[in-house]
Amino acid sequence: MKLTVLGCYAATPRTFTNPTSQVLDIQNHLFLIDCGEGTQVQLRKYKVKFSRINHIFISHLHGDHFFGLPGLISTFRLLGREKELHIYGPKGIKEAIILFLKLGDSWTNYPLVFHELESKEPEVIFEDDKVMVQTIPLDHRVYTNGFLFQEKEAPRTLDVEAAKKYGIDKSQFINIKKGKDGVDKNGNKIPNRKITLDPPPPKSYAFCSDTVYREHIVPNIQNVDALYHESTFLESEAHLCEKTKHSTAKQAAQIAKLAHAKKLILGHYSTRYKSIELFREEAQSVFQNVELADDGKMFDL
Amino acid sequence: MKLTVLGCYAATPRTFTNPTSQVLDIQNHLFLIDCGEGTQVQLRKYKVKFSRINHIFISHLHGDHFFGLPGLISTFRLLGREKELHIYGPKGIKEAIILFLKLGDSWTNYPLVFHELESKEPEVIFEDDKVMVQTIPLDHRVYTNGFLFQEKEAPRTLDVEAAKKYGIDKSQFINIKKGKDGVDKNGNKIPNRKITLDPPPPKSYAFCSDTVYREHIVPNIQNVDALYHESTFLESEAHLCEKTKHSTAKQAAQIAKLAHAKKLILGHYSTRYKSIELFREEAQSVFQNVELADDGKMFDL
Repeated sequence: MKLTVLGCYAATPRTFTNPTSQVLDIQNHLFLIDCGEGTQVQLRKYKVKFSRINHIFISHLHGDHFFGLPGLISTFRLLGREKELHIYGPKGIKEAIILFLKLGDSWTNYPLVFHELESKEPEVIFEDDKVMVQTIPLDHRVYTNGFLFQEKEAPRTLDVEAAKKYGIDKSQFINIKKGKDGVDKNGNKIPNRKITLDPPPPKSYAFCSDTVYREHIVPNIQNVDALYHESTFLESEAHLCEKTKHSTAKQAAQIAKLAHAKKLILGHYSTRYKSIELFREEAQSVFQNVELADDGKMFDL
Repeated sequence: MKLTVLGCYAATPRTFTNPTSQVLDIQNHLFLIDCGEGTQVQLRKYKVKFSRINHIFISHLHGDHFFGLPGLISTFRLLGREKELHIYGPKGIKEAIILFLKLGDSWTNYPLVFHELESKEPEVIFEDDKVMVQTIPLDHRVYTNGFLFQEKEAPRTLDVEAAKKYGIDKSQFINIKKGKDGVDKNGNKIPNRKITLDPPPPKSYAFCSDTVYREHIVPNIQNVDALYHESTFLESEAHLCEKTKHSTAKQAAQIAKLAHAKKLILGHYSTRYKSIELFREEAQSVFQNVELADDGKMFDL
């Protein structure tokens, strides 16, 4: 599972900073998460293959998370895309995109499939045999969801050495991989667990932006391998959080701690601060394993 | 009159090229012409003062001329703008912008004034005592206007030396500047033209993008000081022009020649070509004074 941060600064695109967008490479899916203005340029800059993006998840319809989407959809058309593109986002997103396509008389030559969200409870919005994506309802100025990306547990893998030791014939290997028990030369049953290995533990990633501090999300993100939680402010500006519905670095760390996250990634920084290192310092007073998102930064999770 | 090209490449924003946007500095107005994705970043890069932009002219609602507008309008809000912002563009532009503001619950705290265009004849859309802006109806895949920016003739200026020579008292200078005749010490009338100087000739700039080759625009842009005319293609791709409703460099030069423009500025290049110098070479086979627009380039007109 690999995360590439395309942009992670709050409010507006600037000369050297970009609004929110991330690419999550998970089990051969390339999921795009949020799409602020300029995202398509960032995708080019970091050589992300446009054709691998089939699912786009939009947390909310503020410009710094969404205004790059009409352009990206148009560019897919100009690149001759034919594959379906799935878009998950708040109710209204379909009307907005369709209106822009209509005004430009620029209908896509590929199917656009909208999955409009309006539930205030977590729900599964994508699932295949290897991955599941659930919403994490957040509390922001407009209807907003975070997203929890979870790998499913892989099948146990054959322990060739153990199978040899028990004298199990190769012809049984296919069935053993499917979960069946083995049989040795004397006809004795060998339990599957004795001749297979544990699969690598499934990984999970939670994206939580934008949101005010709300502990109700903690049960949904328990034991997550990596938690991206917005930290627009430092505690010195904590008084702005309730009005703007944003969080401080310390609050993000508090959520990570309560959720027993293995790693916290901070982002969505207000540009009022001199250095983003200040966010790490503040968060580490509560939670140790803190990383700083930055435009172009990759995380091997 | 000074023109700053923020972006001048066709189709999509790329790592090092930007879609159409220009800033025209004319008689203390800073007019923004078109607003492709990323325009606000280009404005920052070239240190254009956001607060000086009060009028935005949008030629048509294709993404590469328009998708930067929702973000720019949001950024004006975040910057605390209070002044009116006037937006001139095809019918539908208001619905699109209002929908985006509504979905983000991000209404501007300054008045947004829309001037929706739908006429197929040239019309005056802005006028004050120094400048006039008219539409230039173009022929593209969707309803599109170019824009003609014209300075008005300035008042004649006092010729102090001539006034002295005629022995005219300083007390008359105010009235002479207003166009009145002078009176010498002997009571003789001195005609205004003998004691004033011609004002500098008023300048004009025509922006014509996007459009297929259409001579019907020529009468509207006669003798213009500078003509920006799109040249998406070279003649080698002329067969694409009718379908896509774009022009070649040679066709742009033909229009400049017919209109007796003083200067032709080319732009809206397809990125399929190795060098934009090819556009200049082709255009100069028809019209001599050709300049190439490029992102960040300034023209003192």
